[in-house]
Amino acid sequence: MNYNTSFQQFINDLEQALECELGCNVIATNLMAAMRYSSLDGGKRIRPLLVYASSSIGEANYTDVLKVAVALELIHCYSLIHDDLPAMDNDSLRRNRPTCHIKYDESTAILAGDALQSLAFEILSRPNNFKNNANLLDVIYNLARATGVHGMAGGQDLDLQNTGRKINLNELKLMHSLKTGALIKAAIVCGYLLCQEVDKHVLDKLNLFADNLGLLFQITDDILDATQTTAILGKTANKDITSNKATYVNLLGLSVAREMAFDLYQQNIELLANLGKYDYLAQINDKVYLRKN
Amino acid sequence: MNYNTSFQQFINDLEQALECELGCNVIATNLMAAMRYSSLDGGKRIRPLLVYASSSIGEANYTDVLKVAVALELIHCYSLIHDDLPAMDNDSLRRNRPTCHIKYDESTAILAGDALQSLAFEILSRPNNFKNNANLLDVIYNLARATGVHGMAGGQDLDLQNTGRKINLNELKLMHSLKTGALIKAAIVCGYLLCQEVDKHVLDKLNLFADNLGLLFQITDDILDATQTTAILGKTANKDITSNKATYVNLLGLSVAREMAFDLYQQNIELLANLGKYDYLAQINDKVYLRKN
Repeated sequence: MNYNTSFQQFINDLEQALECELGCNVIATNLMAAMRYSSLDGGKRIRPLLVYASSSIGEANYTDVLKVAVALELIHCYSLIHDDLPAMDNDSLRRNRPTCHIKYDESTAILAGDALQSLAFEILSRPNNFKNNANLLDVIYNLARATGVHGMAGGQDLDLQNTGRKINLNELKLMHSLKTGALIKAAIVCGYLLCQEVDKHVLDKLNLFADNLGLLFQITDDILDATQTTAILGKTANKDITSNKATYVNLLGLSVAREMAFDLYQQNIELLANLGKYDYLAQINDKVYLRKN
Repeated sequence: MNYNTSFQQFINDLEQALECELGCNVIATNLMAAMRYSSLDGGKRIRPLLVYASSSIGEANYTDVLKVAVALELIHCYSLIHDDLPAMDNDSLRRNRPTCHIKYDESTAILAGDALQSLAFEILSRPNNFKNNANLLDVIYNLARATGVHGMAGGQDLDLQNTGRKINLNELKLMHSLKTGALIKAAIVCGYLLCQEVDKHVLDKLNLFADNLGLLFQITDDILDATQTTAILGKTANKDITSNKATYVNLLGLSVAREMAFDLYQQNIELLANLGKYDYLAQINDKVYLRKN
């Protein structure tokens, strides 16, 4: 993806902050190498950008925003490592490179995911790490809840349980709202919680925006999986179809899935218009809708 | 193990608190079932007892102590699930029952560990969950750091890297200080951080006590592995020897390992005597030294 100057600057700063958190001053060098391999590999950084975009609604400290963005991204990277494991999706390619358990080994990959999760919470609770720590416990809570059985891990479990089973659209939506939606929502909510003043009304609207964006993200993911090549995606294409997983594309057909994506995209534009000037979130809404990988 | 009345009451309350946190009101029922299976199975609850014993040094709120104890135990249970996985120690028996990946499956076991870790941090950050939240961020920090690459996960990585390699006593100590020592220390430190008043001098001594106790715990573990039956241990005996892992017993021989355990036990008695009246910690020191499984 190409970003505008402000987003690009933030991504550059984020990469530096990630590099800094994943320093090599550690006893378990093999483990840290695997953590670095799977985190410093130029992902799209959508969740960090959401933290940034959402924090820009009010007045937030920039370095605080970077730290929360790093925590969100580490959780995301951990989930990718575990999702790719042989016992899960058994994938060998991610971002055009061997997955963590292929590059290292399975035990290291399991531990790398585990330790990335811990590191996210370590960053958020480190003494004197934040300029504004008024809502820090709330940030940790939102992230922890979105990560666990009520969020991402729960959604991954539903996904695995559903494989090979015929499920309906509501079941598919519910699964994705946990598996990918919860962390996207946490990114948006946590970003906003870093602002000096938090308005309950705005928070409610952001939650609706986040629900739509999470669903939009998943539908476009399914569309890309069905229509793009492995080279463009940077991961194995047609994976969902060959593994017989329910997707929006095989449940609704390609054209209805595309309509649904467009509707969500439009709804989000209206939501933001009603809220006032929310440029950065609007740009991310565009990006997710228009992305090619 | 048999506990005195106060410890037994705390364990009873802890089991209830665990049951309460692992309620079934959840969408991902399969995942929650696995989390319950591996957490509500009557472990020795050493880490929760350490939280309790350490908190009793000063004035701490009892329900706060229970919550931190639950968080520590959930982290411990997550680590057992992942350690038992085929890619790790490949163990099929734990506390006299099939391990999580045998009872459920490998993907569920990976997710159950992941989600237990998240739940620990969720509990510690949940809005209005604690009566005294003065040091709550510090509690989260100590737990996160002890769990990740600088603690337990890092130690497990060293352990796996060391398998089949000849290592010396210092390397073995370093590995265990991370793998088991870090979480034991976190339990003791976090318990004390719940007290109304925290004395830096006491905290330093508790850190020394914790270092000794962690090492003592591991040495007695190795001695039991080499000398007890599978039935008494509740897990596969002689596992370390058959898997060619370095242990205190095969590095030092049984009798030197026993002497080392006794020295640590004695050092801790003296440490506590110098500090004043620390009955509960002394009792745990006894239990760890004298345990039969």
